[in-house]
Amino acid sequence: MPEWRKDPIVDRWVVIASERGKRPCDFIVSGDEKKQGKCPLCQGNEHDTPPEVIAFRENGSRRDQPGWWVRVVPNKFPAVRIEASPEVRNYGIFSTMDGLGAHEVVVETAEHDSEIEEHNVKQVEEVIWAWLNRMQDLRRDGRMKYIQIFKNYGQTAGASLEHPHSQILAVPMVPPEIRAEMDGLKNYAVVTGRCILCEMINQELREQNRVIWENNDFIHIAPYASRFPYETWIIPRSHQPDFAMISGNHVRNLAEIIRLALKKMDSSLCGPPYNMVLHTCPVNTGEDVVHYHWHVEILPRLTKMAGFELGTGFFINPTPPELAAEVLRDVEIAYDHVLTHNTGEVTRYV
Amino acid sequence: MPEWRKDPIVDRWVVIASERGKRPCDFIVSGDEKKQGKCPLCQGNEHDTPPEVIAFRENGSRRDQPGWWVRVVPNKFPAVRIEASPEVRNYGIFSTMDGLGAHEVVVETAEHDSEIEEHNVKQVEEVIWAWLNRMQDLRRDGRMKYIQIFKNYGQTAGASLEHPHSQILAVPMVPPEIRAEMDGLKNYAVVTGRCILCEMINQELREQNRVIWENNDFIHIAPYASRFPYETWIIPRSHQPDFAMISGNHVRNLAEIIRLALKKMDSSLCGPPYNMVLHTCPVNTGEDVVHYHWHVEILPRLTKMAGFELGTGFFINPTPPELAAEVLRDVEIAYDHVLTHNTGEVTRYV
Repeated sequence: MPEWRKDPIVDRWVVIASERGKRPCDFIVSGDEKKQGKCPLCQGNEHDTPPEVIAFRENGSRRDQPGWWVRVVPNKFPAVRIEASPEVRNYGIFSTMDGLGAHEVVVETAEHDSEIEEHNVKQVEEVIWAWLNRMQDLRRDGRMKYIQIFKNYGQTAGASLEHPHSQILAVPMVPPEIRAEMDGLKNYAVVTGRCILCEMINQELREQNRVIWENNDFIHIAPYASRFPYETWIIPRSHQPDFAMISGNHVRNLAEIIRLALKKMDSSLCGPPYNMVLHTCPVNTGEDVVHYHWHVEILPRLTKMAGFELGTGFFINPTPPELAAEVLRDVEIAYDHVLTHNTGEVTRYV
Repeated sequence: MPEWRKDPIVDRWVVIASERGKRPCDFIVSGDEKKQGKCPLCQGNEHDTPPEVIAFRENGSRRDQPGWWVRVVPNKFPAVRIEASPEVRNYGIFSTMDGLGAHEVVVETAEHDSEIEEHNVKQVEEVIWAWLNRMQDLRRDGRMKYIQIFKNYGQTAGASLEHPHSQILAVPMVPPEIRAEMDGLKNYAVVTGRCILCEMINQELREQNRVIWENNDFIHIAPYASRFPYETWIIPRSHQPDFAMISGNHVRNLAEIIRLALKKMDSSLCGPPYNMVLHTCPVNTGEDVVHYHWHVEILPRLTKMAGFELGTGFFINPTPPELAAEVLRDVEIAYDHVLTHNTGEVTRYV
């Protein structure tokens, strides 16, 4: 059973995956070795994953069989598990909890070699519906306090599988990064009566030098204090604490802007490794989340997080966000280069 | 001029190195290309660095000439600079400051191919004296609020030069990681009258399953909530907030335990990339730092920081610290394999 352990000094929990117990030699795996074997996320290999949680699939196709275009499965090597207790146990100065949580993989397409942004907007929309569906379900478990949706692309960014996928981790405590954002947004709102991110959108639209793209519902910017070169954020124009409350007609515009953001990054930076992270409000904590403003952060991993970043929490970024926005704004995207999918009728098989 | 920018939501400052302005193609540099050219940190190439700040060198040898065994120079591409104003300027919701600070490189040995831990204890001691010397000097500038000493080893851990070196960055604000530790230690002390790290040492010595090594002044442990596989901390036994106040006779024991920790890690993990980070109290803030307990964190970089870690601030560690401690405790070190240096008389040329 994995185990949560709290750092005795700061509010930082760590999952210790005790049963894996990686010995030194386990870390010496070359990239080539990893690639051997068939891909468990490909169509036709459905039985190489745990049974699917949900899938969007063709009429008449069967569970854990081909015929799907988005498929969600439990992680075969989960960091955390549902069958566990939320009780915190202390001994001496240390605190521990069972490795409670949920860890799922969203297979974003049946095609191994085409990244999600190479598909049409509809396919990205379907991935977002899968995120929403799982988020709605996982929060029904009152023990879960935060649901983290993220995507790792490229080995440098932590991806261990090539097949396009994102991940969902539900955790039983509010993460420090989200707590810090909650505090920052609330403190500002209490003093000014306004939301920092709403204000940021207005200021960025006035100044225009960090705006990359916008549509009716979202704005894509290089944030003022970007930690990483070519870091960008997608922010909903209307104040909304909870991603799960997104209205259906906003999903298409979110799909469009995410797809365009990834295509622009891919084109201008030659397919860099990146992390995409959804930031949304905590769930089931009983606290007022009205000040939160959900958003998506896209973090290309072109620089290393080294001793300075780990020691201080500060960052050094060699690319001004204004330059990043200019480069990303100007990159030409071949809009006609899309695959067409999902022409059949849709069954949302849950 | 580089620029500090504050994230508008959380207390996180970022150095934007505006004049470097890395365009996309600047990131596409292969490892091989980087290695070309002579090493600016090697003996004989002293004029490839800015003029030295201090050096420990043989009697009769001259500044910026061979004859040194530890040499401190300003970073040729500094992230931050001394010639700048500490004034914070606001426009709209954003805050900015000149890129104030200091950024120095400690060349740990004149020999390119021998890592510091391969030298004798005396050489490591000399490196620590160089850190102390610079820390004492840099804090005299009241604008500096924290002095971060760290070492990056290996490209994965952010090292851009092979020659053994560590770095010193003085910054004009207290970093969030240090602020969180200050708060955690103070809150515990206010409630219990005791220090968490002092308590931790006692509990670890009782339990013994995470202790790797100890000497009269320091203990080397795999911390209970390790973020990284084989992460270890070196903690002084006696409560001491400020590394710069270390007593002279403790320096030798610190050198011994750092050297042994690095040798054990190198042996058991085949020379992994790592960051070594000194955690000490802020300076020049006027606040009471009595609750802080300085220590050294050694962070092997065998796993990636990915979307989950960046989004939440939580970590997933596949190696229980108890296993890490066992492996590191048991590894055999060839004590006789040391180089001998510094047989001549010492001049601390400042």
